[in-house]
Amino acid sequence: MESRERKDECQGGVNVPRRNLLVGAGALAAGMLLTKAGGLLSPDLAQAKAITESWPWPYVKLDPDETAELAYNEWYRLYCGGGVVSSIFSQLREKVGEPYTLFPIEAFIFLEGGVSGWGTICGSNSGANIVTNLIIGPRTAGSVDGMLMGSEIMQWYSDTDLPTYSPKNPKFSGQIPTTVSNSPLCHVSVGRWMKAADKSLGSPERRDRCARVTASVAYHTVELLNAWKDGKYQTKGTIPADFYGIQTMHNCTSCHGSDVPMPPTAKR
Amino acid sequence: MESRERKDECQGGVNVPRRNLLVGAGALAAGMLLTKAGGLLSPDLAQAKAITESWPWPYVKLDPDETAELAYNEWYRLYCGGGVVSSIFSQLREKVGEPYTLFPIEAFIFLEGGVSGWGTICGSNSGANIVTNLIIGPRTAGSVDGMLMGSEIMQWYSDTDLPTYSPKNPKFSGQIPTTVSNSPLCHVSVGRWMKAADKSLGSPERRDRCARVTASVAYHTVELLNAWKDGKYQTKGTIPADFYGIQTMHNCTSCHGSDVPMPPTAKR
Repeated sequence: MESRERKDECQGGVNVPRRNLLVGAGALAAGMLLTKAGGLLSPDLAQAKAITESWPWPYVKLDPDETAELAYNEWYRLYCGGGVVSSIFSQLREKVGEPYTLFPIEAFIFLEGGVSGWGTICGSNSGANIVTNLIIGPRTAGSVDGMLMGSEIMQWYSDTDLPTYSPKNPKFSGQIPTTVSNSPLCHVSVGRWMKAADKSLGSPERRDRCARVTASVAYHTVELLNAWKDGKYQTKGTIPADFYGIQTMHNCTSCHGSDVPMPPTAKR
Repeated sequence: MESRERKDECQGGVNVPRRNLLVGAGALAAGMLLTKAGGLLSPDLAQAKAITESWPWPYVKLDPDETAELAYNEWYRLYCGGGVVSSIFSQLREKVGEPYTLFPIEAFIFLEGGVSGWGTICGSNSGANIVTNLIIGPRTAGSVDGMLMGSEIMQWYSDTDLPTYSPKNPKFSGQIPTTVSNSPLCHVSVGRWMKAADKSLGSPERRDRCARVTASVAYHTVELLNAWKDGKYQTKGTIPADFYGIQTMHNCTSCHGSDVPMPPTAKR
């Protein structure tokens, strides 16, 4: 991180105050960029990058229960992807300020239903990956933990009997069945649940189930981020493409049955 | 949009200069937020939202060829998702400034390989959706075109013999086969291509194919955004969940064979 910040400063040709020092002094009060003489600098690209493209983003530990409750309620406004991002970033907007105030959370409502209802990656997984990769940073910034934490969450999502979280004030008060998706995809996760519950997509049970799944993922994401903040995070995440020879989930037979094709492996 | 900007100003309790006026005067020079008296305001949440959560984001028409060339080359640095976002936003950082300068493009490298190599949604589709939803805005801001343009791109991606774009200076100079994925998923798209080409994941041909697919998607995204800027965009996008009764792609038999289950449809 140190060398990266210095590099950005060199590229911009201006003296950019160290963001970490600003955060220590209270980001909301001191967040604007000043020259050494106190003059106002126009927020050019080098300065903007010093705020939003320097990693890790400042993180303070959050309460998993409080986060999950926020995510549960946000599902009814921004759905799965926006719900996870908002539950974590809205707290960090208050506790930290920049760069969280500058991230357009609301735009990520489109992650709903596996991206605009296409049933691809469950939005709660997309949201968790956005959060971990924005906070810890991309692998180009020196740590693979953001990417691997996102991957770990997808594995946890696939393996876990979801939802694990029960809201304090549920909008649907009856029983919500739990299911294991064996996949990070919305279509598979929701489809298995709908089959087990015999409930339709538009039913209040299905809607509350997805709100609770969103809360469950937000809860677990904060658990992992808190461990990372304490210097105790040891990733369980992997990159499946590294050992399957193709980018893939682990549930080959779910789609291929017993006839799983093998990818070409020679580098030809 | 007008009413939304006014609402944000009211919520913040401060006089936030109208961003569109600032952009007209040159965002890079005038982008910082000043009080009417010219004093410096700390960038609190209301102000930050006025920059990054007011939609649509200012857009100027881009050259599709130039964008595709940028995306092709960026694939070799940020891969599919980051490549699409960077190819479009890097130009808009130069031509417009904020809010593009404040968006952490580089973090989105994690979209590679269908999110960290899991083979879910192809990163070029994720990147295109991020771009259309950030520029046009989420549906909560008054237009569904951002979401539907993203959906239209996924449909185009699924139906088109890809890649459609040939770079000016290819890193791999041989022939690259083209394939139709019939799916927005990385695993299916890459898998079908690897089977047709008989090339491995690590081969230079597969890598260049994905760089060219990224360029193709960036090209088409800019075509649609330019039409939207001209007021001529009429979406072909749909939300599959609206008519299938489950969030899904259209290629049911690809995974289910002839035994496609029907989702519960009664609202029970």
